[in-house]
Amino acid sequence: VADLRLTLEYDGTDFQGWQRQAEGTRTVQQTLEEALGRLLGTPSTVVGAGRTDAGVHAEGQVASLRLDASLGPAELWRALNALLPPDLAVVDLAAAPPGFHARRDARRKTYRYRIWNAPLRSPLRARFSHHVASPLDVAAMAAAARLAVGTHDFRSFQTAGSEVGSSVRTLYRAEVLGRPGDEIRLEVEGDGFLRHMVRNLVGSLLRVGLGRAAPDSLAAVLAARDRASAGAAAPGHGLTLVRVDY
Amino acid sequence: VADLRLTLEYDGTDFQGWQRQAEGTRTVQQTLEEALGRLLGTPSTVVGAGRTDAGVHAEGQVASLRLDASLGPAELWRALNALLPPDLAVVDLAAAPPGFHARRDARRKTYRYRIWNAPLRSPLRARFSHHVASPLDVAAMAAAARLAVGTHDFRSFQTAGSEVGSSVRTLYRAEVLGRPGDEIRLEVEGDGFLRHMVRNLVGSLLRVGLGRAAPDSLAAVLAARDRASAGAAAPGHGLTLVRVDY
Repeated sequence: VADLRLTLEYDGTDFQGWQRQAEGTRTVQQTLEEALGRLLGTPSTVVGAGRTDAGVHAEGQVASLRLDASLGPAELWRALNALLPPDLAVVDLAAAPPGFHARRDARRKTYRYRIWNAPLRSPLRARFSHHVASPLDVAAMAAAARLAVGTHDFRSFQTAGSEVGSSVRTLYRAEVLGRPGDEIRLEVEGDGFLRHMVRNLVGSLLRVGLGRAAPDSLAAVLAARDRASAGAAAPGHGLTLVRVDY
Repeated sequence: VADLRLTLEYDGTDFQGWQRQAEGTRTVQQTLEEALGRLLGTPSTVVGAGRTDAGVHAEGQVASLRLDASLGPAELWRALNALLPPDLAVVDLAAAPPGFHARRDARRKTYRYRIWNAPLRSPLRARFSHHVASPLDVAAMAAAARLAVGTHDFRSFQTAGSEVGSSVRTLYRAEVLGRPGDEIRLEVEGDGFLRHMVRNLVGSLLRVGLGRAAPDSLAAVLAARDRASAGAAAPGHGLTLVRVDY
């Protein structure tokens, strides 16, 4: 028996998110497990570090897989990529420590959210960024984002109905980069993320960027520990899971 | 009667190229003309500066349109963008000199060809770049590309069967930028391009980059004035029509 670590890149546009769902729903997990099943001749289960939503992309999603087969990692890697569709690839596959679990063992995750901030939508950027036509105040957004850095109860940024266990998380970094007329990016790094936490945070930052709330309103939103206090979730297609550290 | 100049951006992946074809074939021209028809209540014809192939993208394709309507350019622009699909947008629309013809009046065109040069294919880059797994010699490709700059008979780079008129064109610029393990780009600027000329040029540059031909072989390929002397056409999805100057 061998424990493996797979690093995955995908264009999330045509996937209904990571997690396996009802028969006939195209998800990343289901596509990967189906390819593994064809290759190994036996059903396989992979565990993803983050359960990305529909439309969310990944440069470095990580999955764990316990393997009973005689196939070496290098062979499995090559064979798997040959079977996977153009919008999903295994960019690394290596032996992992015994018992490796991609979700439980993750220590740090990095996400990027892209906003195309120009009067007109851009067909070449449409799959990978959220279009906001009105000019955004990047400095105000950056100041607000800094208030989210640190250890907080992020319940205000957790989609209602999804509460499980503690909603305390630590953000190591939350930077807003770029300028109006071009792409604006939020980059966040933390020890873990609640359901829709990045997208809900972007929703609140957009209120600040549009001048509908002051930068320091973010502290009040956090303190409220109430989902209703934060902005609406920004759409999934602007979000990319950049990397997972162990 | 007013002559208009439309600047278009599109993700070419799901279009069968620019030019209107048989009923039921989705092309950029057909999609644009259909939207204009719905808007103006009368059939409209647009002329494109370049007849991009299936899969080829545009940041700045230009089209001309002769308009009989009372609609002002600003109104038409807004209404048109509201009707067009996510993968096609009018990024500029302005009055043009009387008789303006997007193809005949074009003085200069700029194209970009993207190569993703890494051992593994990249799902996030798959729509917009051609994947080449073996490392490319960028300096050799750049040297070969420089030999194409100037006024030449480019018949060797013209897809057979498409000869019309002179095949003499002037390239003002042909630069290869980037490095292996990352994206490598060819940027070309010229007074006009023959059918598949950029893609055929990329095919020859790839032979050089892979060490199968010397950089100065490009001079011989040009001199041969024979399509069979050049490399195979590189695929359309790596190509973008960047801009057209008048």
